[in-house]
Amino acid sequence: MPSPLPEHVRIVEVGPRDGLQNEQRPVATAIKTELIARLARAGLTAIEATAFVSPRRVPQMSDHDAVLRGIERWPGVSYPVLVPNIRGFEAAVMAGAEEVAVFTAASESFSQQNIGCSIAESLDRFRPVLSAAKRHGIRVRGYVSCALGCPYEGAVLPSAVAKVASALHELGCGEISLGDTIGVGTPPATKTMLAEVAKHVPINALAGHYHDTWGRALLNVYASLEVGVTVFDSSVAGLGGCPYAPGASGNVATEDLVALCDALGIETGVDLRLVCEAGAFICEALCREPVSKIARAMASAPHHVGGRPHG
Amino acid sequence: MPSPLPEHVRIVEVGPRDGLQNEQRPVATAIKTELIARLARAGLTAIEATAFVSPRRVPQMSDHDAVLRGIERWPGVSYPVLVPNIRGFEAAVMAGAEEVAVFTAASESFSQQNIGCSIAESLDRFRPVLSAAKRHGIRVRGYVSCALGCPYEGAVLPSAVAKVASALHELGCGEISLGDTIGVGTPPATKTMLAEVAKHVPINALAGHYHDTWGRALLNVYASLEVGVTVFDSSVAGLGGCPYAPGASGNVATEDLVALCDALGIETGVDLRLVCEAGAFICEALCREPVSKIARAMASAPHHVGGRPHG
Repeated sequence: MPSPLPEHVRIVEVGPRDGLQNEQRPVATAIKTELIARLARAGLTAIEATAFVSPRRVPQMSDHDAVLRGIERWPGVSYPVLVPNIRGFEAAVMAGAEEVAVFTAASESFSQQNIGCSIAESLDRFRPVLSAAKRHGIRVRGYVSCALGCPYEGAVLPSAVAKVASALHELGCGEISLGDTIGVGTPPATKTMLAEVAKHVPINALAGHYHDTWGRALLNVYASLEVGVTVFDSSVAGLGGCPYAPGASGNVATEDLVALCDALGIETGVDLRLVCEAGAFICEALCREPVSKIARAMASAPHHVGGRPHG
Repeated sequence: MPSPLPEHVRIVEVGPRDGLQNEQRPVATAIKTELIARLARAGLTAIEATAFVSPRRVPQMSDHDAVLRGIERWPGVSYPVLVPNIRGFEAAVMAGAEEVAVFTAASESFSQQNIGCSIAESLDRFRPVLSAAKRHGIRVRGYVSCALGCPYEGAVLPSAVAKVASALHELGCGEISLGDTIGVGTPPATKTMLAEVAKHVPINALAGHYHDTWGRALLNVYASLEVGVTVFDSSVAGLGGCPYAPGASGNVATEDLVALCDALGIETGVDLRLVCEAGAFICEALCREPVSKIARAMASAPHHVGGRPHG
């Protein structure tokens, strides 16, 4: 028999950052801060707010300062921001960041294409960030992209994921988010990868960040739940696409993740209806439809056709 | 350790019947037969073609005779049709049907609402169909809807599903398709239901028919694969909606099912690209977008971002 599923899941909402940075249409700062407020109101306790990256490289994040300063902070909610290096870290701290995230990959080609350096060089960039964060008492999350496949290299070895994940952990990242950047994972591949990483990093320091490009994000979430992962990243309304397949889906929708947990009797603290409303709000601003099937079902279904387990 | 996944899956394509009957826009007979031809060309070997039901009740199926006569029959491909009773069966045989399907439910309320009789009465209606089918050497498939939940009653007991599934099997149905009509299933609920049904009907006589209303169809497919189910129903482009939640998704898309099997190394005999093309063809006729994420990914992704297992 498989071990029982966890009773509680923590969701890291990445829509305002990872989601929006992949949306073409510029979004006003006031819309972003309103979205973040609505997500907090829906019960999300970790909301990645923005990225302190070059405005030239990512114009959508050029208002990072104004967003971080403009957030109405809720007690018990953290608002991590992405920082590529010590300069970004310092700017983030100046703007009031209390938690940051750094970003690397398990694939050399992806690292070169995405952040313009090798994996080892990216870790070197993070070293001063983690030292400074320690001094400031700021938590640091580490992202590993291409944990289940790379758009340039194809297969990625679980040992390569384990290597970079354990390096981030040793540097001081309290949580490592393992990204299926192109959504090619399957339950067996996900479990094999997690088993390898868990040899080096405690499973409760791991998060699953699965893209829904091939419609399999929830399968990989479920496979991860079965092996004890309890933290997952998701993006309201499935915000964000896939830069390697224009038109394809990106991050798993928060609505889908919450509805799955609800149906499994796993507590998330998130109100599905309020998340759907937050999704509808940002989709209206972006003039697009939510990609979440749950969002569409919730908009039309009678209340008793909900997600609780049947039978 | 879980038992290994099956090496081969048989897909029953239900788009031209279960899919189209839930589409509002009327589709010309020639489009339907062209769709069926394209599905056969894509490698599907069981294509539910139409329903011999009252044209008043289901106008979209009023050309059942012309569709069944108009199909270009491929060797090795079966074209089952839905028949509600002996009258429908006789009309289907006259039009050349070589395989039929009957339809009941695991929930009394749904049976009353959907086919206007109790479950027991529906089985009485099927008795002469199965006798006549035996005489004609015609295979009969049985559908059980609401196998994981009912829009009127909520939870449905696995024992209720087992009862009607075994009654259909005893009547002579060679295959029983278990439908999650409102898409509320989860892996644990699906496995519990299948375990109960498999006490009465051999697992290789069962098919999974999972709706994607809540984005969980592939999860339930995967859970079923883990317990040895090897036949699944799906609908090209996710044709068909959910009459209980307008705008919500219906049948799992054939593209999604094929891509999952491809990624798991499970043979289906179906060419994903050709199914996507068949889906694009019918979506154009219906003036709508395919609901399948795979369809969108395939339309845009570089070839190496495919579905094969990584890691």
